[in-house]
Amino acid sequence: MKVDCKDMRTIWVESDGLSVGVIDQTQLPHRFATLSLKTLDDAAYAIKSMQVRGAPLIGATAAYGVWLALRHDASDENLERATAALLATRPTAINLKWALDEMMAAVRNRPRGERAAVAFNRAREICDDDVAINFAIGRHGLKLIEAVAAKKKNGERVNVLTHCNAGWLATVDWGTATAPIYLAHDKGVAVHVFADETRPRNQGASLTAWELGRHGVPHTVIPDNTGGHLMQHGMVDFVIVGTDRVTAQGDVCNKIGTYLKALAAYDNNVPFYVALPSPTIDFSVSDGIAEIPIEQRSGDEVANITGKTKDGRIETVQVVPDGADVANYAFDVTPARLVTGLITERGVIAASRAALAKAFPERA
Amino acid sequence: MKVDCKDMRTIWVESDGLSVGVIDQTQLPHRFATLSLKTLDDAAYAIKSMQVRGAPLIGATAAYGVWLALRHDASDENLERATAALLATRPTAINLKWALDEMMAAVRNRPRGERAAVAFNRAREICDDDVAINFAIGRHGLKLIEAVAAKKKNGERVNVLTHCNAGWLATVDWGTATAPIYLAHDKGVAVHVFADETRPRNQGASLTAWELGRHGVPHTVIPDNTGGHLMQHGMVDFVIVGTDRVTAQGDVCNKIGTYLKALAAYDNNVPFYVALPSPTIDFSVSDGIAEIPIEQRSGDEVANITGKTKDGRIETVQVVPDGADVANYAFDVTPARLVTGLITERGVIAASRAALAKAFPERA
Repeated sequence: MKVDCKDMRTIWVESDGLSVGVIDQTQLPHRFATLSLKTLDDAAYAIKSMQVRGAPLIGATAAYGVWLALRHDASDENLERATAALLATRPTAINLKWALDEMMAAVRNRPRGERAAVAFNRAREICDDDVAINFAIGRHGLKLIEAVAAKKKNGERVNVLTHCNAGWLATVDWGTATAPIYLAHDKGVAVHVFADETRPRNQGASLTAWELGRHGVPHTVIPDNTGGHLMQHGMVDFVIVGTDRVTAQGDVCNKIGTYLKALAAYDNNVPFYVALPSPTIDFSVSDGIAEIPIEQRSGDEVANITGKTKDGRIETVQVVPDGADVANYAFDVTPARLVTGLITERGVIAASRAALAKAFPERA
Repeated sequence: MKVDCKDMRTIWVESDGLSVGVIDQTQLPHRFATLSLKTLDDAAYAIKSMQVRGAPLIGATAAYGVWLALRHDASDENLERATAALLATRPTAINLKWALDEMMAAVRNRPRGERAAVAFNRAREICDDDVAINFAIGRHGLKLIEAVAAKKKNGERVNVLTHCNAGWLATVDWGTATAPIYLAHDKGVAVHVFADETRPRNQGASLTAWELGRHGVPHTVIPDNTGGHLMQHGMVDFVIVGTDRVTAQGDVCNKIGTYLKALAAYDNNVPFYVALPSPTIDFSVSDGIAEIPIEQRSGDEVANITGKTKDGRIETVQVVPDGADVANYAFDVTPARLVTGLITERGVIAASRAALAKAFPERA
């Protein structure tokens, strides 16, 4: 998407043809800085330190990391070492494992002299495929936005609420939840986004607000507490969120707080959509609430907040009493009954076992 | 309640008999400091600058402010001037106007020589009445907690979730939502509180966590996004919140985000109670969503967060991109259908027009 009128992806091959550029997302929203990854270690560090984050972007960075490793040493040993090192950076990221398996499959049986070139091409494909999938999600979601826009009076905006960051910063381009929004905006549909702040890590206030703002999409940052009130007063036309995992029956695991917004949408007849690339569907799990273990992260993320001081320093402040107990559940599960539809690259699918099995017969 | 083993109220007459002590709540939770209010100006500044906050405490401070004014000059002119100055500090605070009307009624027709003493006694009564009402709320709510505790296995805690600060810091003592919790804790019932952080002003993370901690009540601070997940997993026995206004049909206006917790409670069969002194009921309003205008406060409260740095400085940091649009709705309305009961000084009342009219026949 655009950063102040310049087209960008979150990851690219630098003009030297030897290194990979990424945005240092740890510095957003207060500073826009890019990094050149020149070695396997650079790529592993970028993932581990969350300079890059978001499942698809992590996968893409790992894929290019394999290329960077093989360019220096294309031996079997180095291939094994590189994939192991990259996998260890974020061991629970399913997309990371998938991308590394893809890279391994592509290069393993090739002669050493070809491996770097093969790895480069496969990494580039992984990136392009991500862009294509998100674009397809966007095309399907765009129809939903246009249908709402068609019913608006002249000059009225379509108001979309989103939670966390399922934006282009989390992917190679377009994002998932944001893809329909960017497509609508670029097509001239008047769309406005309410971006949930998304405590405790504030991905909405920092990342979603930043990327929408740089692309020029009108948006408003709201505390996570606010969405219900807006929906009661007809100020939200629909909700689109991303997801970390969708179960075979259509339950949606996503950033903590998503369930509360789904409840409010349901209570106020506001459509609640979830945008996802189909690999996010896990047909091995049915009841999301009972079966998906929810990660508990460090309480420090709740107790402390980082931001920019008036004089431009980045500072971290503690917002609870000294020694307070805090809990930090990272995700929750929204039951399928609250989900209006799943926006996938194959179209908008009902959040039900039957509809998912019909849309993905090869996997169900 | 107790502050590290010492019994306190939020407002008291100092031992000199000439000034009024309060806790400087703007410094919580990072520093516990008290202030001596010696003049009308001190009292007005304490209210205006939110050194004291919470409807009952604001009323009590204003009442003592009239006393402080009359002690220096008991003329009609000064009485008028003092009440006008105090009313102007927080013009929308209904309790403030009520307390000032009470003070005016008490002293207006008394000789000048008696006015200071009369004002002192009426202010003390206003404080004691607040304590008595909250204690009565606590007694009624205690039965609900004890009923849950009776069904628990040995050693299991009763888990109460609350939002914002309806604690003793907002009142003269006991608080409203917290009164049943303090009574249960003091009686030896194992009770544990999940305190919603309560963005954007963080009253839960700063005030509720502080007062529960100082009194010794086990508690956990959680992001506002978390309560739904906890309720889905049986980790919340019931919710108790305070309120700024309850309508004749039982709709509850309270801090933004309350509605989302009520939805989650309803969806998971978790009882949702609202604790309130009966003057909070506004029989002139019926449909809270349609009729209650919701205050929009400065976006700065969303964009910036204040806390303590590692080296102990109080610092404010910006958590959104430069120039981001933000919205800050202060309250929302929870429809009566989601409310299990209203805990008042007259008992636990259904959130319905019929039940409210029956419980308060003199006002309905």
